[in-house]
Amino acid sequence: MLKTALGLKKAELDTPCLLIDKNILHSNLEIMRKHSIKNKVNVRPHCKTHKCSKLAQLQIEYGAIGVSVAKISEAEVLIQNGLPNVLITSPIVTDNKISRLISCLEQAPSTLIVVDNKENIVALNEAGARHKKMIHVLVDVDPGIGRTGVKPEYALNFALEMKQFPWLNLMGIQCYAGNLQHISSFDERKIKSLQTMQMASDLVKCFRENGLNCPILTGSGTGTYDIDVEATEVTEIQPGSYTVMDVQYTSIGSQSNEEQFNAFKPAMTLLTTVISNNRAEHVTVDAGTKSIYVDQCKPQIISHQGLKYDWGGFGDEHGKVTAVNGAQLPGYGEVLELIVPHCDPTINLFDQFFITENDIVVDVWDIDLRGKCQ
Amino acid sequence: MLKTALGLKKAELDTPCLLIDKNILHSNLEIMRKHSIKNKVNVRPHCKTHKCSKLAQLQIEYGAIGVSVAKISEAEVLIQNGLPNVLITSPIVTDNKISRLISCLEQAPSTLIVVDNKENIVALNEAGARHKKMIHVLVDVDPGIGRTGVKPEYALNFALEMKQFPWLNLMGIQCYAGNLQHISSFDERKIKSLQTMQMASDLVKCFRENGLNCPILTGSGTGTYDIDVEATEVTEIQPGSYTVMDVQYTSIGSQSNEEQFNAFKPAMTLLTTVISNNRAEHVTVDAGTKSIYVDQCKPQIISHQGLKYDWGGFGDEHGKVTAVNGAQLPGYGEVLELIVPHCDPTINLFDQFFITENDIVVDVWDIDLRGKCQ
Repeated sequence: MLKTALGLKKAELDTPCLLIDKNILHSNLEIMRKHSIKNKVNVRPHCKTHKCSKLAQLQIEYGAIGVSVAKISEAEVLIQNGLPNVLITSPIVTDNKISRLISCLEQAPSTLIVVDNKENIVALNEAGARHKKMIHVLVDVDPGIGRTGVKPEYALNFALEMKQFPWLNLMGIQCYAGNLQHISSFDERKIKSLQTMQMASDLVKCFRENGLNCPILTGSGTGTYDIDVEATEVTEIQPGSYTVMDVQYTSIGSQSNEEQFNAFKPAMTLLTTVISNNRAEHVTVDAGTKSIYVDQCKPQIISHQGLKYDWGGFGDEHGKVTAVNGAQLPGYGEVLELIVPHCDPTINLFDQFFITENDIVVDVWDIDLRGKCQ
Repeated sequence: MLKTALGLKKAELDTPCLLIDKNILHSNLEIMRKHSIKNKVNVRPHCKTHKCSKLAQLQIEYGAIGVSVAKISEAEVLIQNGLPNVLITSPIVTDNKISRLISCLEQAPSTLIVVDNKENIVALNEAGARHKKMIHVLVDVDPGIGRTGVKPEYALNFALEMKQFPWLNLMGIQCYAGNLQHISSFDERKIKSLQTMQMASDLVKCFRENGLNCPILTGSGTGTYDIDVEATEVTEIQPGSYTVMDVQYTSIGSQSNEEQFNAFKPAMTLLTTVISNNRAEHVTVDAGTKSIYVDQCKPQIISHQGLKYDWGGFGDEHGKVTAVNGAQLPGYGEVLELIVPHCDPTINLFDQFFITENDIVVDVWDIDLRGKCQ
């Protein structure tokens, strides 16, 4: 199927499957490239969204200075594929993980990690010393979520303590406010995110005043990519979803439109087929919770007017499609195209992207970081 | 990691990962085997739960007459691995899927499918004629969910029409009430499920009275495995979750215990590690929505008393663990073991099961049907 997919019309593909419209993707990448130049901010895009080495490579071609990942297992795949300057945005804890980090450093000495714990920096320094590997680190600062990071008030002392550890090379600060990215109102999002990133910027200045090396302040996602650059010391941003977008992101307000986040366009869609139509009030399609990760918002059907998808209690393999405002239900065997609620976890359910141009399949990309949750 | 996992203690495994306790799994399989013999009912277990050819093979060794799957892509893997008598429990629609079915029939002529649509049986018969392949079919009867299946009142006429199609071999009826499997009260579940399966049994009798071949009535899941055998004509059941169990299933009542479904024991657990502990009120672990599929019920931590896991708005890669009733939060780097909310979609996020015996890894099984959603 995969080998023979090239040249097919998208409607001829077997379903469920994920498509990326090549032109929309490239347009999204170009917008981010221009944003980076205009605002003199580096982009180290987050690959936890798309989980795809080929897409990461394209981001580098569009000016990214490196790539971000959430887990060491994602870093391993990207490094294996020659992607440069990988930042792992969650702490690397346990002996197993630290030994995997050392292997990464053998191949990619510029790999950058974050730290938020004293015990952890002791262990990392010991591993660095044992293997004669300098480990580049950022202090992870908690923006108030409590997920990872040291509290801002302890960050300076924590960083100063690192001076005792010769195998750790302090490179700056990470402060990522994941909880602010989807705030619906642009103005509210702007106030809260700037407050957070200015706090982190002030910390950067404080680090420097105390003689600490601090060339990097990284954070920011797709929802605040054009906000956080106004904080004084932000040197790089790590957006992910801007590449392919989803219903969750298109539904928030943006700088130029209160109702819609229209800076980037949805490049990724999912195809699903009607496989049963014995009821007057709905039809059943072949994508359920194992193909469209359940989220608070629903998928948005774009191939047909007036159709609504719901998982509908139809289990892991099927979905329910109803018609509203007098629209007609789709026919037996008909293929629907939709935007998924949340791109990250849904991409993580698939093995390939079918890349289309003018609705023809022009490439197939492996989602080679899929399932890399360690 | 995988090659060197054999012989490790489970606490030495990298996390997040999925474990199966070999003895509990075998005990669950043995209970189902005895149930099958005692009640003279065949078991054709559903592999959409575990997505693993090796586990399917074990089910055959424990007396299963074949295996059930939801999708043709799952059937392809199992047939490739030599599993016999595959039943695909959702309709096979579209030319692509029918041509994949024909390929399956080349290797495995006993493959069985379900039908619920006239247009579909025309297309199947044509494909059968073209490739000289007899296609064995069950009439899928809608138990009232409206997911797939013909309404019971139309089932006889639908089946009689099939006589015109020489390449379709009617083998009976499928009636699967997925909506009844998790009803909390055993008595209520029993009344509703027996009503449904007796309706299907009456249809079987009616088919036979009308001269139709109807050796099979299949349906039933883990929640009604010991209920539906009382309906008069049920010949086989297709439970899946009984193998590994989950929080959702252990939380419903059973014949011998109103509070707990204790016929089968949870064999599958997930390991996750504390990777940040800078807050007094919670710690952060390395399993989020990409490792534990979000469901209405929460994971249940079994390695520690008084700890609660929640996805907690911590995103796709992290979870939040809090302590209740005066329990202590786990330490930095500590590993927690938990039962997942819903086994099916969580298994579909992983590539391997680590099989343990007395907490030592004795085998690693590929989850080779993972991601097979077509």
